[in-house]
Amino acid sequence: MDALAIRAAFARAPLLRAAHVQALLAAANGDLTRSLEPETLARVALPPRTHSWLVFPDSAALDSDLEWINRAGAHLLTSTDTDYPRQLLALKDAPAVLFVLGDPRKLAAPQLAMVGSRNASDAGRDTARVYAGYFARAGLTITSGLALGIDAASHWGALASAGVTIAVCGTGLDRVYPIEHGELAARIRASGALVSEFPPGTPPLSRNFPQRNRVISGLSVGTLVVEAAVHSGSHSTARHARKQGRNVFAVPGSIASPLSAGCHQLIREGASLVGRPEDVLLELKIPLPNEGLVRRGGGPGRRLVMDKGYEMLLDAVGFGPVSVDVLAVRTGLPGELITSMLLVLELEGQIAPYPGGQFGRIP
Amino acid sequence: MDALAIRAAFARAPLLRAAHVQALLAAANGDLTRSLEPETLARVALPPRTHSWLVFPDSAALDSDLEWINRAGAHLLTSTDTDYPRQLLALKDAPAVLFVLGDPRKLAAPQLAMVGSRNASDAGRDTARVYAGYFARAGLTITSGLALGIDAASHWGALASAGVTIAVCGTGLDRVYPIEHGELAARIRASGALVSEFPPGTPPLSRNFPQRNRVISGLSVGTLVVEAAVHSGSHSTARHARKQGRNVFAVPGSIASPLSAGCHQLIREGASLVGRPEDVLLELKIPLPNEGLVRRGGGPGRRLVMDKGYEMLLDAVGFGPVSVDVLAVRTGLPGELITSMLLVLELEGQIAPYPGGQFGRIP
Repeated sequence: MDALAIRAAFARAPLLRAAHVQALLAAANGDLTRSLEPETLARVALPPRTHSWLVFPDSAALDSDLEWINRAGAHLLTSTDTDYPRQLLALKDAPAVLFVLGDPRKLAAPQLAMVGSRNASDAGRDTARVYAGYFARAGLTITSGLALGIDAASHWGALASAGVTIAVCGTGLDRVYPIEHGELAARIRASGALVSEFPPGTPPLSRNFPQRNRVISGLSVGTLVVEAAVHSGSHSTARHARKQGRNVFAVPGSIASPLSAGCHQLIREGASLVGRPEDVLLELKIPLPNEGLVRRGGGPGRRLVMDKGYEMLLDAVGFGPVSVDVLAVRTGLPGELITSMLLVLELEGQIAPYPGGQFGRIP
Repeated sequence: MDALAIRAAFARAPLLRAAHVQALLAAANGDLTRSLEPETLARVALPPRTHSWLVFPDSAALDSDLEWINRAGAHLLTSTDTDYPRQLLALKDAPAVLFVLGDPRKLAAPQLAMVGSRNASDAGRDTARVYAGYFARAGLTITSGLALGIDAASHWGALASAGVTIAVCGTGLDRVYPIEHGELAARIRASGALVSEFPPGTPPLSRNFPQRNRVISGLSVGTLVVEAAVHSGSHSTARHARKQGRNVFAVPGSIASPLSAGCHQLIREGASLVGRPEDVLLELKIPLPNEGLVRRGGGPGRRLVMDKGYEMLLDAVGFGPVSVDVLAVRTGLPGELITSMLLVLELEGQIAPYPGGQFGRIP
C-alpha cells in the first residue's frame, strides 16, 4: 500500500486515534508505508477492533475513498504529517486523520472558534457576523461548525471581512450538511478549509457531532459562544475547550431568553464574559485591529483597508435604494454574504437602510 | 448632656467614625454621658476638626435635631448601641451614628442589597420587583437606596410580598428624596426602616451618595446589581461590597444596552452572574422559599401562603377587566404597589392582562 492508501486505511479504522498513529510510525521506523506490516502492528498496543481492521481493511471502501479524494482534490492528513495542526495533537483523543478540502496549511493559523445556537435570534446572528469580521481583521481565523444560525453567521462575517474561516464538519466532506450551506461551504473552501475526521459517505449522525465539537475547540486558542441554550452542542464545545485548557468566552443576554441561558451558565462556570469584541482580543493578548472599531449604534467607524469586495458592493448600492436581490445580480455575490457586508457598511455609517429592506449610500 | 444629646453631638461631628465612638466610650469607662468630658476627650486620638467640634458643639443645631427626633419619633443609634447593626461595625469607616425612622431592630436582619440604574428599563424594573419579592419570601430583608428606577422597584417588590425592606438615604430623614417617593418612604418605615447617617436638614449633596452607598452594601450579606451603566452609583455600591468582603451579584443583559454594561463589567471583575433568583440564594446558602417558583413566562406558580393583601387585590380585580386606577380606588393601595402585585399574580397565572392596561382573573 502507498502512503495515501495507508492514510485511507487509518481514516476508516475504528477507535484509531492520533496517539496510535504516532506509535505505529515509530514502530515502522518513520516509514509510513510500512506501518501496516504485520511486524509493525505486532509492536503497537491497539484496541482489538482497530487491530483486526488494519490487518484486513475493507479495500472496496478504501478504493472508493481514494477515488473521491482524487476527484474532489481533497487532502488526507494523518497526525504524523507536517500539515496536521499541532494544536490538535495536544488533545488526548486527537483524530488519527483529517480530510481537508481547501488549503491544509490554513489549519496552522491562530484560530478562534465561534459557535452557538442553530435557532439564533437576529441579534445573535448580527453579533456573530460583526464580531467574526472584527476578529478576522485582527488576523484571527474563525473556526466553526457550518451549522445554521450562529455558525453560519460567524463564517459569513469572517468572509465578509475577507478573512479566513474553517469549518469542521460532522459528516463526510463529499456532502454539505446542512444542504442550505452549499454556497457557504464553497466559499469556506476557497478562503480556508473544510475539515472532517469522518470518511466520505458519512451521513449526519447525532453521535458524530459531539465528537466533531472537540476538533472545533481543539483547533482554536479559544471558543466564543454567542447564543446557546443549556445542554446544547455549543455548550459541549465550550466544555471541550475548557478541558483542553483553552479559553472559553460567552456573550451574555437577557435573563428572559433561553438562548442566553447556556452562555450564562458557562460564565457562572468560569467563562469570560464578552460584552465587546475587544474583550476577547485583550484576554488572548492579540493586538486590536488598526481601525475605527465597529460599534453597534456608534458613529461611523472607518476601516483603513477597504477591500475590493466592499468597494464593488458600495458601487453597486449607489445612492438610490436597492434590494439585496438586485445587489446579488449586480455583484454576483451570494445574498447572505451581501447581508453581512451591508451590516458592516451600515455600522460604519456608509449606507443607510430604506423601507422595504432596501439600502442606499449616505451622501 | 444626656445620652441622646451626646448622640446628636456625635451625629454632627465632622469626620467622626464608629471606631472613634468605641474609643470614646472605652475612655469614659462605658458611660456614654461622660464621653464628651474633657478628660475623656483628652484620652482619645481624634482628628483636630472632630475634637474641636466635640469640645464646642453647635448647641442650636443639636437642639433642632433633638426637637426633630422627638417630633418625628426617630431613633438615633451610635455605634456602641445594642441596636446598631453588627455587620456594619465590620466596616473600617462605619458611621458613628444612624438616624432611623421605623424599627431599628430590623437592621439586624439578614439583608440583600438590590441597587441599579435610576433610568432603568421596564424589563429591569420588572426583574427587580419579581426578584425582590422572591427574596423577601425567602426571608431576606431587601435593602436599597430609595432612588428612582431599580431601587424603588426593589423596595416595592419586597413590600408587595409583605416582606421587610430598608432604605438607606443620602439626605437627612426629615425629607424624602426624591420627592416622588413619599408614599414609598412611608411604607418602608412601616415595614422596616429608613436609615441615614446624615443629620436632619441635610439636602441631597452629590458627595454624600457614594458615602451612603457603603452603608447599603455594609448592612447586607451581598449586593445585587440589576441594571447599571459603567461608572454609576450602583457600580460603586458593588465595589464597596467587594471591598467589604461581601458577595457581589449582577444580572446580565443585552450587550447592546448601556444599562447592562456596568453589570457585565462587574461580572468580568468577579461578580456572580445571576440568571435566576435562585442563583443568589444558592450562593448565600439560604434555603429556597417553599413555593412554586415564580418564573417569567412559566406556568402558574403557587405561593403556599397567600397573604391578605393579595387576597384583597384578587377580589378587587374580579373577572371583569379593570384598570390599576380603579384598583387603587377599590383597595386603597398605591398604584405602584398594585402594579408590583399584579405582575406577581400574572406570573403566577392567576390574572391575565386585557387590552388598554386592564386586568382580569383567570377563571
